[in-house]
Amino acid sequence: MSDHPLKTLIEAADRSISAKDFDGLMRFYTDDATLVMKPDMYARGKDQIRRAFEAISAHFDGQLKVRQGKIEVIEGGDTALVVMETWLDTAGEDGSATSTVRRATYVFRRESSGNWLCAVDNSYGTALLDS
Amino acid sequence: MSDHPLKTLIEAADRSISAKDFDGLMRFYTDDATLVMKPDMYARGKDQIRRAFEAISAHFDGQLKVRQGKIEVIEGGDTALVVMETWLDTAGEDGSATSTVRRATYVFRRESSGNWLCAVDNSYGTALLDS
Repeated sequence: MSDHPLKTLIEAADRSISAKDFDGLMRFYTDDATLVMKPDMYARGKDQIRRAFEAISAHFDGQLKVRQGKIEVIEGGDTALVVMETWLDTAGEDGSATSTVRRATYVFRRESSGNWLCAVDNSYGTALLDS
Repeated sequence: MSDHPLKTLIEAADRSISAKDFDGLMRFYTDDATLVMKPDMYARGKDQIRRAFEAISAHFDGQLKVRQGKIEVIEGGDTALVVMETWLDTAGEDGSATSTVRRATYVFRRESSGNWLCAVDNSYGTALLDS
């Protein structure tokens, strides 16, 4: 399902994160979306999610870049489960580049307009169960 | 979130599978739900999902029992992502018992009635990316 429209949408959202365009990023979320910041720490609604991304960006000194790896999209009932490799490229204190990969899970909801919006953003995937 | 209503609902669905009550099981799904039977093989809609469970049950000679392990529920935008350990207890050809655990991911949708229904049933979780 590499040509699913959600793949393109998530690529655009990842570009917004990499560009620190958090206003633009918010248009990908439902008003009442939830972002898993870390296990047992959730941001709920666009205000909290925006602040969470600003804090994450600041933590990485604005050097965080996000990109996709493998992706599977499973639609059902006007929702979609996305299972995806999310690559995080960051710079260490000495300027060295570091890449880490997470197996993320996202829930998208199809609005009556036909547009997809992210309702649950859990970049930790099933690793949440390790906590 | 061990007391989330979806935990109770999934326990009831798992009892239906273990009891081979596939009519009862179907009441937990949206009409247009998707079940991941195995990577790249999906059942769509209640008719296909019911037949898939009948085939899975037959494959295990009616001995399949399903039960929950750890569970996390993340609500957002009238949907919920469930990340859960699903234990599968089966009997080998020699009658010996075997238990395997999967890290499953489910998407539930809250109907206007307030009831939750399963829209995406992916017991493979992020292991889908291994295929």
